[in-house]
Amino acid sequence: MGRIRISVYLGDAGHKLGPGKIALLEAIEKEGSISAAARSMGMAYRHAWEMVDELNRCFDTPAVEVSSGGRAGGGASLTSRGRDVVKRFRAIEGSVDRAARSQVAALEAHLDPREPSRRHSRSGGG
Amino acid sequence: MGRIRISVYLGDAGHKLGPGKIALLEAIEKEGSISAAARSMGMAYRHAWEMVDELNRCFDTPAVEVSSGGRAGGGASLTSRGRDVVKRFRAIEGSVDRAARSQVAALEAHLDPREPSRRHSRSGGG
Repeated sequence: MGRIRISVYLGDAGHKLGPGKIALLEAIEKEGSISAAARSMGMAYRHAWEMVDELNRCFDTPAVEVSSGGRAGGGASLTSRGRDVVKRFRAIEGSVDRAARSQVAALEAHLDPREPSRRHSRSGGG
Repeated sequence: MGRIRISVYLGDAGHKLGPGKIALLEAIEKEGSISAAARSMGMAYRHAWEMVDELNRCFDTPAVEVSSGGRAGGGASLTSRGRDVVKRFRAIEGSVDRAARSQVAALEAHLDPREPSRRHSRSGGG
C-alpha cells in the first residue's frame, strides 16, 4: 500500500534527480523528441527543455542527444549516459522500496481506519 | 556526498509524511509548543497548525497533544505515537541511505567535474 518517493541530490552542488526528470527521459526515449515527450506528460515544452539542459550539463557526457531540424523538427534520443541514469535511478527506487517496506508497513499499521473519506486528499506540506 | 530525500505515502489515501512534518514534530518536542516550533523553523503558525492537525487525524491516536491556554498560551508535546512516527521515519531514512549509497555513488562518478560554478544552484523540477 504505502510507497516512498525519492529525490537524489548528487555531488556538492546537490543536482536534483527526481521522478519527474526520470519520467521525462523515459518519455523522450519512447516519443523520440522533447516536444512529443513534453506533450505526452502534459508538461510545457520550455520546462521540459530546461530539465534536459540541466541533465546534460550535470553529467560528464550528455544524457539526451538532439538532432537538429529538418521539416519534421528535431528529434531527440537518450545517450548511453541517459539510459544509464534512468536504469540506476529505477534501481535505487527498487532498493529503497525493499529496504523500507517493513518499516513503512509498521507506520501504516497505526493509520486511523475511520478516515476513508480522506482517500483522495493529498496535502501540501511534507 | 550525495543524499536522498524521501517522502512516505501511507495507506490508500496516500497520507504524505516527509522531512518537513518530521522536523516540525522534532521542533515541537524541543520547543514545547506549536508556535515556538513554527518560529524556530521560520514557518507560519497556521501552516504548522495545519500539519499537526493532519498528522493527528492520520493516525489511530494523535501524534501531538496540545494543552490548552493559561496566560502563557498552550503548550504542545509529542505523544508516544508522535515519538514513534519520528523514530520510524528517521529509521527509514537510515535504511534508504544504506541501501542506495553505492548506487548513488555510481551516479556521482559521472558528474561533470567542470561545473563548480553550479555549486549553489538548486533547480526546481524533479
